[in-house]
Parts: sequence; structure tokens; C-alpha cells
Amino acid sequence: MSKNNLPPSGMRDFLPEEKKLRQYVMDVIRSEYAINGFTEIETSEIENLANLVNSDGGDNTKMLFKILKRGEKLKLNEVPETEDALTDLALRFDLTLPLSRFYANNRNELPTVFKAIQMGNVFRAERPQKGRYRSFVQCDIDVIGDPTNLTEIELINTVVRTVSRFRLTNLVVKVNDRRILKGYVMAAGFSEDQFTDIAITLDKLDKIGKDGVINELLNKQYEQAKIDALLQISDSIANGGLEAVKDYSPDGYANVKTVIDVATAVQDFATVKFDHSLVRGMGYYTSSIFEIYYGDGGLAIGGGGRYDEMVGKLSGVDAPACGFSIGYERLIDILLETDFEVPGGTRLALFYQESDDLTEVIKLSIALRETYSIVSVFLKKKKFGKQVDRIKNEGFDAFAIFAPDIEIKDFND
Amino acid sequence: MSKNNLPPSGMRDFLPEEKKLRQYVMDVIRSEYAINGFTEIETSEIENLANLVNSDGGDNTKMLFKILKRGEKLKLNEVPETEDALTDLALRFDLTLPLSRFYANNRNELPTVFKAIQMGNVFRAERPQKGRYRSFVQCDIDVIGDPTNLTEIELINTVVRTVSRFRLTNLVVKVNDRRILKGYVMAAGFSEDQFTDIAITLDKLDKIGKDGVINELLNKQYEQAKIDALLQISDSIANGGLEAVKDYSPDGYANVKTVIDVATAVQDFATVKFDHSLVRGMGYYTSSIFEIYYGDGGLAIGGGGRYDEMVGKLSGVDAPACGFSIGYERLIDILLETDFEVPGGTRLALFYQESDDLTEVIKLSIALRETYSIVSVFLKKKKFGKQVDRIKNEGFDAFAIFAPDIEIKDFND
Repeated sequence: MSKNNLPPSGMRDFLPEEKKLRQYVMDVIRSEYAINGFTEIETSEIENLANLVNSDGGDNTKMLFKILKRGEKLKLNEVPETEDALTDLALRFDLTLPLSRFYANNRNELPTVFKAIQMGNVFRAERPQKGRYRSFVQCDIDVIGDPTNLTEIELINTVVRTVSRFRLTNLVVKVNDRRILKGYVMAAGFSEDQFTDIAITLDKLDKIGKDGVINELLNKQYEQAKIDALLQISDSIANGGLEAVKDYSPDGYANVKTVIDVATAVQDFATVKFDHSLVRGMGYYTSSIFEIYYGDGGLAIGGGGRYDEMVGKLSGVDAPACGFSIGYERLIDILLETDFEVPGGTRLALFYQESDDLTEVIKLSIALRETYSIVSVFLKKKKFGKQVDRIKNEGFDAFAIFAPDIEIKDFND
Repeated sequence: MSKNNLPPSGMRDFLPEEKKLRQYVMDVIRSEYAINGFTEIETSEIENLANLVNSDGGDNTKMLFKILKRGEKLKLNEVPETEDALTDLALRFDLTLPLSRFYANNRNELPTVFKAIQMGNVFRAERPQKGRYRSFVQCDIDVIGDPTNLTEIELINTVVRTVSRFRLTNLVVKVNDRRILKGYVMAAGFSEDQFTDIAITLDKLDKIGKDGVINELLNKQYEQAKIDALLQISDSIANGGLEAVKDYSPDGYANVKTVIDVATAVQDFATVKFDHSLVRGMGYYTSSIFEIYYGDGGLAIGGGGRYDEMVGKLSGVDAPACGFSIGYERLIDILLETDFEVPGGTRLALFYQESDDLTEVIKLSIALRETYSIVSVFLKKKKFGKQVDRIKNEGFDAFAIFAPDIEIKDFND
């Protein structure tokens, strides 16, 4: 009977070629984050279930991979009735809750302004479908402890420089501020209570258009007059740009203006611009929000914002915080589509025969590693032509047969 | 009420200093493995439970972190009776089973001789105690598809070169062969059936001494005469060295001789020697077994061997295989104890004041990254002396205050 050798549903294995790309991208992100003054930490992939459930994680808390209790804690002869009887641990669904917990636990040993890198696997029991994985990598930078918008600027500058390392041009960073959104939603006549619900619909403006937004708000039983006012304001901001929001939120305006002006002036890789319709789903953002796109109107390859209240709420230790996360899996997909080539060293295959002195063969392979970055030793087969073809297909650049005077044959010559 | 901000029992977070060491060690291992002709793959951290349970994983299969079924598959209103009613996925406990599954699933796209790197977290629900973690890193290299002992030699050579990169001297590699062990155990009069059980006790010779071994075998109800014969043979091999085992297993003798001779001749970092008492716990090894020690009689920092039957048994696809795994956590512990310093670039702190032009400040920080490998920007505080002390303690090498003509103060001057 054939065994099931596939990874579980929604999980993935990576073959050498894709792993090489994934590792290269991880390495570049890690190194570029570090150059810009961030330091890496690592948190446990398994968290206490209670922390995850009480985390404001929205739908993510419904997609937890929970871990079965063990030993005496697990009672198999009783009706469990609730899942709590069966589990008290789960896999993390993002890196932000672990960061808050980590910060609260270790703050005495951390710098006052803590610039953190976190890169690792997170897990969500999504319904398996194209482009949705149940285990995927996140690459976050966060600054905890700095209330100034130097933080926003450095996060944007760092992410733009990082993404540009993959030779992606036409990068666009869109910036908004929750206070601006709230300002103009309330100016249209909605109450503060209604803001989050309105924002959820506004977030879809790009996808469903103005008519879609109007219909969805009508379906939600909001008044026609307020909806009309909202769309009118939205139009006027779309035409007037950032200057048009000055009165809706002076603080938000000043913040976005500085962030855009400085983040534009310090780099040549991306256009940084105001987008009043940028909402971002998560409820926890308090002011700045931003996303980076590959191509205007293209795919978002990262996003973030300021969440000054979350660390306190999650961990009991108040601290201003702001983060930017690169959508690693999206970035990988784009690099696969654009046939990005991982810069790599040269690979040589060294063939030997059974009659050769293995010590000399291996010594030669070690010596050849001064010239070739990777040297692999293979026993020469009878069908040598086929063997050479296979090596070439595997991406080797050259080969040699062990001999007193070896001759290197380069496939590129 | 204070929240629980610790990671779950047996799990760990890593602060920047330790993470820097861990990441450096990972990077060096990865790069040294690659230089020697191995290519990296990645497998899912979550496996189908049935694969893990049916894996010959011994005690590890009793330490599984199992994942609770979700949705309709989980029946909360029934007595579960068995764990199978509650779970069908679990976290992997090593990297060898996933490699076998991966190989069986992808063999048509892999080289005939597949030299694999796998590095990642594995999970075991060990009783928490010093030096035992419930989540830890393994760094494996394996060669699938090559029956010759070039494989053993390359694995040993690669691991020795890798470990030597951490400036650990006095490395010792001990080599044995299961066929030699079996040969002399049977020469003492034991049957083939008894071999594995005898080997489990012999494995403890280092720890419990000869008397301990005798007592344990007597307790297991083996005959005094056979035990005496075994110890006598063991003594004679201890005195006579590899030549003394020629007759117990000519194949084992020839294999170990070549492996030791060649692995000794091709490197200057480690002593490679025969140890007839080396057993290694896992039942699946078929011939060569080896371990690398930091200091003779010191701590094992890696081990492996040939397991020609396991891939076939686990995956249904027969293939000879041999692997070597670096005990990453043990290596980290040794490097922490020996105060190993991660070679790193220079770190500069650039201070600015609120009245400064942020664009110019950040442009300067970018320019300084040509000279310093890491530049961090900080708002200058009133108690500047204290702030500088803190920066120095955090490991910065120098600082500067933003000005038209900046002056860099190096802490090392």
C-alpha cells in the first residue's frame, strides 16, 4: 500500500531551488533590517492559549491550531463539553502578540527604545485555497518606546531599502492616519461608535468602488444623507490631497506630512504618498498606517502602523509602539513570477573512480573550494555523458574528473 | 492582576544577545554545509500524526505535541475514549522522518545522490529540566542514494570543518560499525535477537563502568558465562584497537578503517578514531555510526550514522542513507560557556535634537552606514551622559551628535 507522503493539508515542503530563494530572501531582509539599527529576538512558536484568545486578534483567534493536553491533564473518559478541557497551548498566529508578551517579560533588560526584528513561522487554520497557507513566514520590525514619528520614517525607509534589494522597481508606499479617517467619517455625521464599522466598508473602496461602498453602508442600515456626505468628503480629499484633510485632523495632517516629506527625501526607491482610503483591517492601530505596493495599484507586499495602546493592553506594560511587516510569502510569489535569480557562487562537480585514492580526491575537492564556492564529489558512472547532463541540469557550472592534472570543463564556455 | 508573560513551560524566548549568537551559529553551519556540496530543503513543522506514530521513533513518539482536530471533526459532546478521536496532526520530533517522507514524495525531482541540509525547530514534550527543551533546533545533513563510504567521510569532514569554525579545538570523532558490535556480541555467545538489548546496556559502559554493565546484564537475566565472555572480548578490543575486530566483522572492519584513514588525512581539526563501545541509541542504524566530541571524554556535540533501511520502511521507497546531525543546542551551550564572541561589525549611535531637520539626520545616518555596519538614530535626551552610558552598555562602539560637522566619539579610543 502506498503511504501518504504529502505534507498535511495547507502545509508545504520546499525543494532545494525554492528553499534557496526563500533563504536568500530571509537573509537579505534580516541583514537590511540589522544595518538599519534593529536587533533580532526570537519568541516561542507555542504560546499559552489564554494569551492568544484574549489578544484582540480578531478572526485569527478562530483559526488557532490548539495543542492537546497531555498525561493526567487530559481526561479521555469524560465528555469534554468545551475545548478548554482538552487544550491550554496553541501555535502563534502572528508575531505581534509574542512581541508584546516578550517586551513585558524582559523590558528591564531591553533598551528604552527597543527596535526589534522578528522573523519566523506563524500558523493559521485557514480554509486551504490558492495563495493561502496554514503555516507561513512573517518578517516584522517594530519600535517600542518611541512616540515620535522618527519611528514611522525609519520603518518606511528600512522596508523600502529592504524590498529594493530584490531589484523590484516602481515601489509605492501609501500613508494614512487613523485620526484623519475618524475625522472625516465623523465630519460626515457618523458617531465615534460607528467609526470602526464604517472603516471596514471604506477599506473596500479600491475593490468594490463607490457604488459598492454605498450599497454596503445602506445594507448596514446607515442613513443615506450621511453616506452621501461621506462620499462627497472622500471625493474632495481624493481631489485635494493631503491639504484637504488639515481641518479634519490637524494632528493627523501634521504627522502624515512629516512622514511623507522625510521618507520621500531620504531614498530614491519608492514614491511615498497620502491615501485617504487606506484603512488596514486591524482595529488596534491608533494613528499612522501604511502599506508598500509593488506597482501603483498593484499588490501590497507589506504593511503596518502605530499601535500605542496594544502593548499595554496585552501585556500590562504601557508603551508606544509602531511596526512594519513585510509580506514574505507575497514577496516570494512576486520573485518567483519575475524569475528573480538568487546571486550565487559557482558550483563544480568533481568525479572520481573507485580505483582512485579517496584521500587525494577529497583533498582536491577541498583545494578547489578556494576557486569554486561549492564543490560536490561524485562517483563516476558508466553512462558518464548522462551523468554530466544531469549535473548540468541541476545547476552546476563546471565539472572535472580526478587525475594528476585535472582539466576543468566549464558549461558556460 | 499581572498577566502571565512567560513563554509556556519548557519553551524559550531569546533576547538580542543570545539570538545574535544563535543566528550566527545557524548561518555558519548553513554556509559550511553548503560549501561542501549539500543543498537545503525545508519540511513542514506539522506532520500527519499517523506518519509520526508509525515511525520507529521510540520514546519520541510518546512525547508528541498533538494538535486538536477542528470544526466538525471534533466532537465535544462524546466521550473521546482514545486520543485518535481528538487529533490527527502533531508537531515533528526530529528531521529524519520528514526527510524520508519528503524524499519519497519528491524523488523524481531530486538528484540521484541527494545531499540534503535540514535546519529547523523540532518539538518534544520532555519533562522540563535543565538542558532539556521542549522546542529546539536540529541541524542535519544527510546523503540519500549513495551506498559507498565516501558519504561517511564527507559527512564527518563537513561536520568537523563546520564545528572548527567556532574555534573549538581538541575535537574527537569516534567511529564504530553496527556490524562490528553485532559480531563481537554474538561471538560472546548471545543470539541475534538479543543484540539490540545487549547494545542498550553496552552503550552505558562510559557512564556506569564495567561493573555496572555486568550488573545490568545480570539483572536482565543473561548468563554469567556469556557476560564474562563479552567483557573479555571488549577488553581485548580496547587493548588491540581496530585490528582486533577484523575477524568479528571483516566488512565492518574494512569500512571503519577506510573512513578513519581518509577522514583523518583530509583535515587537521579533529582526531578520528575507532571506539568499539560506541552504540548510539537509535535502533535504525545499519552499519557506520559516529559521534563528535568537544574534548576527549567530553561532551558529544553531534552524531549520526548509516540507516540504509529506514527510508524504505518509512516512505515505501528503498534508498541507502547516511546522516550526521550537529547538536545545535549543545553547541550553543558550549559557546556560551566559552564566552565565544560573535564577529560583528561596528555600531554607531547618531543623536539628534528635535530642532534638527529629520531629513538631514536620516540622510547622514544612511551615509554613515558606509563606514559603520550598523547605525541607529536616537533623539538626544536631557540626561545625555546617562543616555551615552546606556548606549555603550548595549554594545555600541561609537556615537555622534548631528551637526554640520559631526565629530565621532569612539568608545574604544
